[in-house]
This record gives sequence, structure tokens and C-alpha cells, in this order.
Amino acid sequence: MHFISEQRLDDGVLEREFTLGEIPGILWTPVSAPASAPVPLILLGHPPLGLRRMYPRLVARALDSAADGFATATIELPGSGDRPRWPVVEQARSDLRRAMEAGDPVNDEIVDALILPLAVPEWQAALDALLLLPEIGGPVGYSGGVISIGIRLAVVEPRICAAVLFAGSFVPRAMFEQARQVTIPLHVLLQWDDEGNDRQAALDLFDAFGSEEKSLHAHLGGHTGVPQFAGDAAARFFTRHLM
Amino acid sequence: MHFISEQRLDDGVLEREFTLGEIPGILWTPVSAPASAPVPLILLGHPPLGLRRMYPRLVARALDSAADGFATATIELPGSGDRPRWPVVEQARSDLRRAMEAGDPVNDEIVDALILPLAVPEWQAALDALLLLPEIGGPVGYSGGVISIGIRLAVVEPRICAAVLFAGSFVPRAMFEQARQVTIPLHVLLQWDDEGNDRQAALDLFDAFGSEEKSLHAHLGGHTGVPQFAGDAAARFFTRHLM
Repeated sequence: MHFISEQRLDDGVLEREFTLGEIPGILWTPVSAPASAPVPLILLGHPPLGLRRMYPRLVARALDSAADGFATATIELPGSGDRPRWPVVEQARSDLRRAMEAGDPVNDEIVDALILPLAVPEWQAALDALLLLPEIGGPVGYSGGVISIGIRLAVVEPRICAAVLFAGSFVPRAMFEQARQVTIPLHVLLQWDDEGNDRQAALDLFDAFGSEEKSLHAHLGGHTGVPQFAGDAAARFFTRHLM
Repeated sequence: MHFISEQRLDDGVLEREFTLGEIPGILWTPVSAPASAPVPLILLGHPPLGLRRMYPRLVARALDSAADGFATATIELPGSGDRPRWPVVEQARSDLRRAMEAGDPVNDEIVDALILPLAVPEWQAALDALLLLPEIGGPVGYSGGVISIGIRLAVVEPRICAAVLFAGSFVPRAMFEQARQVTIPLHVLLQWDDEGNDRQAALDLFDAFGSEEKSLHAHLGGHTGVPQFAGDAAARFFTRHLM
């Protein structure tokens, strides 16, 4: 892991861009934390639209998390952003974007099928590297988009202790079997009036999770309109489980 | 409204039993509040099992609310507790209790049909009396059980500005039309694994509410096992809307 840039944001948060092999990523740490007290980490998931495009929403989540005492990190997904493009993912992504903008049903099965098998080990490699930094301890949470990646990580990565999942994208049926194997505490967000989403599939998926502590939080506001108070509640979930 | 007893609870809360005509009730107010600053009020709904039986859960909610700066009040439902019994309600209630204890589907349509038309004006009369007290101002919230009473009050009582509803009991189909007329902010609690409840009806009801701000919070833990953090989130909902 190589840091390639560093800037101190107004809110007392250090933002560092890094590369891990060919994978670009960003790490945010609260600068107020004493070096002697490593902080817990939240991995920030996001849809495969490129880190640059997702930056405004990611940095907002990072700043909120830093205020609660968490480090956060994210990496570029395979085939996204400045990483080498794959024509087939490219096509699937532009279909996805068009569908989301038109409010049509979103089917990112192709994206999932191609990206998921690569993305999960990349997230794990990033976690290996991040946990070697002296300022970062455990435990680790996963928060955010591409719910199949969140589910798969929750199943295969024992260092992830709690997850906030966003039930806002297509879930391949094969993912239901994985969901039954999830046992960590889950806080699941669903946008009730998200027309590009299959609400019943999201409810079925929530039902399938094997976790003893799972809660579903449904709000209005459309696909990207998760209310601020819902973000605050998700933050409290992490504080409860990771602090 | 006549106060018939008064005691100061350990937590700096004044508990006063009262009668309003033949209706018994309890009022809890934070004693730390200066007389010059009337506090907002939350009406505590509950199932028709009698105030005495419900007291432990009610006082816990009252103490939490007082810590957030709210007064709370509750009244005995018609035909419940020490109020004159009605044989037909009595029978329906014992069926209801048996069903709840056995984890069977709960059908309290009869209770609703008999109690609702009386209970709603009684809650309104209690509200009239409570808002005359100098230590109580507005705004007013409704929180809790017998969801049909909460829905009906939300429709007919303009002084109620926000409601926490517990989707934990049978909802007559006629109530769906009422739900569409509700426009105040709603925070709806659903126990996902409540076997005595019709989950699909609860989801349909949530969908029917006409409110621009409504959120659904589903948890595990069975009918009476709403987790503490869910109660805290409901409290923050009231703070957001009534403070």
C-alpha cells in the first residue's frame, strides 16, 4: 500500500489516496485520535460508478464516521474509474446508469457476476494492508452499496463484525443462499419508494439473513434520497457494535 | 381532571394518577423542567390489557421520555382495568390474550370495533385537559399500541403532530382507507418475527400511509421484544419532530 497524496480536510480529518498494486483507494482518519489508540475501521462500499463520481457521497460518510471516531476506507471496484475498462462491464454499467436515471428496474446481474468474484478478494487485500497501519485497529465494519459484495464479504471475511447494507440494487437469486449464511449484526436500509428497485426481493432478502440481530429501516426519498436521520441511525449501529 | 395521587420517582420524574370523569389515567412530568417552560407531550398508547398490567412497560417509556424532556400521559381504555367490564369485550380480550400467549394469529377486530369509537374521543378529552396544565405545552405526539387508535387519532386530531406506531396487532381492512388519510410524520415499528402478527398486512399498511415522512423499523425479538436501541430511535424521532 502506497500513499500517493495527503490532505487535511477542514473537519480535522486526514484524507490519503493510496494504491494497492493497481487498485486506487482512499483512507480517511480522524486526526484528533492519539497515535497510541488505534481506531476501528469502516469499509465504505459504493456502486461501480467510479470513485471520482462517488467522491462527494463517500467523503460525506467519511466525515460523519470520523466524527464518531472511525477510520474509513474505500477502493475502486474492478473495471471502474481509472482502472482498465472491460467492454462488457462498460456496457452493463451504462445500461445500469441509464436505468437508474430513468427510474427503470435495475438489473446489474452482469456487473455482479463479473465484478463480485474479483472485488471481494480485493477488499480483503485492502483490509490486510489497512490493518497493518498503526493508527487503525479493529473491529471492522462494512457499509454501503453493491449489496452482493457486502453479503459475500460478511460470509467469507471473519474480520468484518457488523454491516450496514443498502438494499438498493438488484440481488441475484443465488445471493439468497449466501444471505442465510450471514450471522453478523446487520442494519439494512431500504428506500421504500425506489422505483428502480424490487421491493419484494429486498424484503425477502432481509428475511433470509441468518443473523440474530438484524433490522430493516425503510424510508421515503427515492434511490439516492436516504434521509440524514437514517444515516445517523446507521452510524449509531456501528458505534454500538464496533466501539 | 382530578389528581388522586402523586409520587416522585427516583429518576426526577413526577408521577400523578388522575381521573377524568370515570377514566383513570397517569401523567408523568420531568421535575427538572422550569415551570416557565411548558414541555411537549407524548400520549402513551397500550393494548387493552389494563393499566395496572401495562404499568411496568409504560413507566419505563415515561422515564425515557422524561429524560428527553417530554411529559407523557396515558389513560385506561374503555372496558379495561378497573373500568366497568363489558362481557363481550372481556371475551374478546381473553381470546386475544390466549392467542398472544400461544403465538397464534391475533384477531382483535371485535376489540377494535367496540373500543375504538369510544377510545378516540376519550383520548381527545384527556388531551383537552392535559393541555390546560401550565407545565404542559405542545406539540403532542402519540406513541404505541393499538395501531387502529393511533391511526384514527392521527386522522381526526390535528393537535397530534407525529406518531410512533407499533404494527403489532391485527389491523381491520377498513383501517387502510384511514391510513391513506394520515399525513403526519410516522415512525412505524414492526417485530419481524412476531408470529402472532400478519407481517404482510403490516407492510401493506405502512405502504398505505399518506405521510410524506414515514419510516418502517423492523427488528427481531418477538411480539414484546422490541430492542432497547429501537426505543432509543423512536425517542429521537419525537425529539426531531416535537422539540
